[in-house]
Amino acid sequence: MKLLEKLIEVRGTSGDEAEIKDFLLNHIHEVKQNWKVQPQIIAGEEFQDAIILVFGKPKTALFAHIDTIGYMSAYGKNLIKIGGPRAVEGYELVGQDSKGEIETELMLIEDENGSTSIQYVLDREIDRGTPLSFKPNFRETEEYIQSPYLDNRLGVWNALQVAETLENGIIVFSTYEEHGGGSVGFLGRYIYDNYQVRQALISDITWVTDGVHHGKGVAISMRDSGIPRRKYLNRILSIASKSGIAHQLEVESAGGSDGTMLQKTDLPFDWCFIGAPEDNVHSPDEKVHKFDIACMVDLYKVLMQEL
Amino acid sequence: MKLLEKLIEVRGTSGDEAEIKDFLLNHIHEVKQNWKVQPQIIAGEEFQDAIILVFGKPKTALFAHIDTIGYMSAYGKNLIKIGGPRAVEGYELVGQDSKGEIETELMLIEDENGSTSIQYVLDREIDRGTPLSFKPNFRETEEYIQSPYLDNRLGVWNALQVAETLENGIIVFSTYEEHGGGSVGFLGRYIYDNYQVRQALISDITWVTDGVHHGKGVAISMRDSGIPRRKYLNRILSIASKSGIAHQLEVESAGGSDGTMLQKTDLPFDWCFIGAPEDNVHSPDEKVHKFDIACMVDLYKVLMQEL
Amino acid sequence: MKLLEKLIEVRGTSGDEAEIKDFLLNHIHEVKQNWKVQPQIIAGEEFQDAIILVFGKPKTALFAHIDTIGYMSAYGKNLIKIGGPRAVEGYELVGQDSKGEIETELMLIEDENGSTSIQYVLDREIDRGTPLSFKPNFRETEEYIQSPYLDNRLGVWNALQVAETLENGIIVFSTYEEHGGGSVGFLGRYIYDNYQVRQALISDITWVTDGVHHGKGVAISMRDSGIPRRKYLNRILSIASKSGIAHQLEVESAGGSDGTMLQKTDLPFDWCFIGAPEDNVHSPDEKVHKFDIACMVDLYKVLMQEL
Repeated sequence: MKLLEKLIEVRGTSGDEAEIKDFLLNHIHEVKQNWKVQPQIIAGEEFQDAIILVFGKPKTALFAHIDTIGYMSAYGKNLIKIGGPRAVEGYELVGQDSKGEIETELMLIEDENGSTSIQYVLDREIDRGTPLSFKPNFRETEEYIQSPYLDNRLGVWNALQVAETLENGIIVFSTYEEHGGGSVGFLGRYIYDNYQVRQALISDITWVTDGVHHGKGVAISMRDSGIPRRKYLNRILSIASKSGIAHQLEVESAGGSDGTMLQKTDLPFDWCFIGAPEDNVHSPDEKVHKFDIACMVDLYKVLMQEL
Repeated sequence: MKLLEKLIEVRGTSGDEAEIKDFLLNHIHEVKQNWKVQPQIIAGEEFQDAIILVFGKPKTALFAHIDTIGYMSAYGKNLIKIGGPRAVEGYELVGQDSKGEIETELMLIEDENGSTSIQYVLDREIDRGTPLSFKPNFRETEEYIQSPYLDNRLGVWNALQVAETLENGIIVFSTYEEHGGGSVGFLGRYIYDNYQVRQALISDITWVTDGVHHGKGVAISMRDSGIPRRKYLNRILSIASKSGIAHQLEVESAGGSDGTMLQKTDLPFDWCFIGAPEDNVHSPDEKVHKFDIACMVDLYKVLMQEL
Repeated sequence: MKLLEKLIEVRGTSGDEAEIKDFLLNHIHEVKQNWKVQPQIIAGEEFQDAIILVFGKPKTALFAHIDTIGYMSAYGKNLIKIGGPRAVEGYELVGQDSKGEIETELMLIEDENGSTSIQYVLDREIDRGTPLSFKPNFRETEEYIQSPYLDNRLGVWNALQVAETLENGIIVFSTYEEHGGGSVGFLGRYIYDNYQVRQALISDITWVTDGVHHGKGVAISMRDSGIPRRKYLNRILSIASKSGIAHQLEVESAGGSDGTMLQKTDLPFDWCFIGAPEDNVHSPDEKVHKFDIACMVDLYKVLMQEL
């Protein structure tokens, strides 16, 4: 979990993923000699801040988004959301502008019309357009991990666990997921055109709800705002059942992921969201059960082999 | 109309179109020897559950979506919508899960906050994520057809009528239309890349409104939420006028179709929605005038030849 | 400014850009012998009503949309919006249908439920589906230009100024921007596939707000509903700073452009919206400061060279 903690410390709101991309590239170069198969590493300006790893003869691609939600400084001391972060008075935010490191707190201001604006508390103005992130605050107990940005540093961490033993498959570190898509289109096209891969698994974190609970295993999403194709879903459910790995079935009406973005491309991708569930979504206190994390890694290893 | 009734009996909510695809492929193989021109039949996993028929040297593609609206079982006895079905107490729903055939009824539950949830009435729980459809209930009078899923089994049936005499053209049976697109992108790209076809007609069912009435002919949509390109629309209106086939002009601010999806692709497709109007949209009681159906088939035959 | 006034007189609501396209093609053919470099002119049915100009060896593409907002006649005397025009009683609208030229006025009708419909005042009915535009009304003072459709005839005019001295670069005249995208996808794909260009500047008009004022220079948008990639934005900000050209930084939560459309394609485009700010957005009284227009042209000339 040391790696997960480190991943969480690296900033990278949607559109500003250069730092986390560099961290990942460095990390991959350091550890890949211990991996079972050496992947081809595809990155560079033509891929913006995304990374593609190709192992052996791939049939399935795992997508893990490397961007996070956050805030951006606007006019005066106003903040504008990047993606959909929760806004609670006192949340600690960090960032950097031309005057140096920033550590500030979120404040809610209600105006006479009853509408609320989000501001920061600081004795100076932050440069316009500066991205701010939740301050890292990693907590670990016997049973749980709690921290900002388990969504989706945990999905990224899962991808790196899978990479250790992966023989055939693609791992995609995508960008812009929290703020309405952006890189999944050209990444999907690249792997479809070059490797004819059109099976995707979305390594991301979902919600604890009435039907999905802590400690009951990884969640397989049968739908959110998007609906994965039934034939593909049934193959996944069948492999999951035979595997004996604990899993839960999710059926939601809302929410989206790199999967729903893939579905909107001009590509015949099948996709399914599979991830551990978390409490306190999009807050600094996201909380995931360790058993569900272990199940997530186990199920991904099986699926990347058998699908 | 026997074929239309059979088409309506085959289930296929968005994302679960395997059964209706198989039905269509079988039907096409059975009847195509009676068609004027033998089409190339393009289908398979790379096209998910969609089908493309290519006749002669095509200039125009007819799109008919084969999926339907419906419901999906969620937690407890809750139902979640697939697409935008009407929800009225007592609507009969059918489906199938691991325990067998399901026949149930829709129930609306208002909670203490005044918000309504949709549930099913059954003495057992349905497997999570099971798709449910309106129970078939085909009614025919001298003047009208009434049934669930005239949208879009009637658009599919129209395509099959057109196929009988089509010499040059493409017929696309698309998927996922009711739930936010999905296959039109890669289908459009396939026919654009392989046949340079970029003219589309959307064979679908529209609404009876203040300006579009039963029995006045097929509706040509001048716009819905999307706006077809004027130059293309003018060519269609000119051909329709000369044909003498009864038609009505529709101008709506809302609604979408495979046409609006085509417009969002990276493809220079022109498109126009042309279809008979129906009453009781997205309910088990959709109702279309037979004269409008006849006009729809006639106009499509002319347009597929002359555009 | 004579050219700008002429551009504003040519009608072209979203989907109906044939006339403004023809005007632009004629104008370009007339004046291009005075341009420093002769561009390749790419147009034709395969590009719908859009135009691409390719100068030398391009690295960056300027996008200027040629469509405008407006209204469309529906049933009775009702009007439906094309894009998001303001609706104020008395606004003058012009258009043409089978019975000839139309000059009418907008009227707001409140029904018993308190909902408002938009109608036109005329002693005859306008053909269904006829596009109507704000009546041209060009006003110029020492400091300001005021007129309908500065958004985006001014962005188009800017592109034509840049064309005069452009040595390497692409200018794209796009369509459908005001009504939800349409051509940017295939235009982007064309220039990416054929010229490997993936840097875009969006030549469009933005809003005067709390943070962006008349006469303070051209606005560089750090975000609207979409977020441009930070690395690309930083390069632009650095070039703008060194240039000494007056500019303002915009940070908004809403609004979109051809840039947000580019981001939704399957293409790795970087994009940034740069444009003079206007008051009275989407009304017949759009107002822009002349100094901001001059800065816009100057900054585009520098950026198209240095990016």
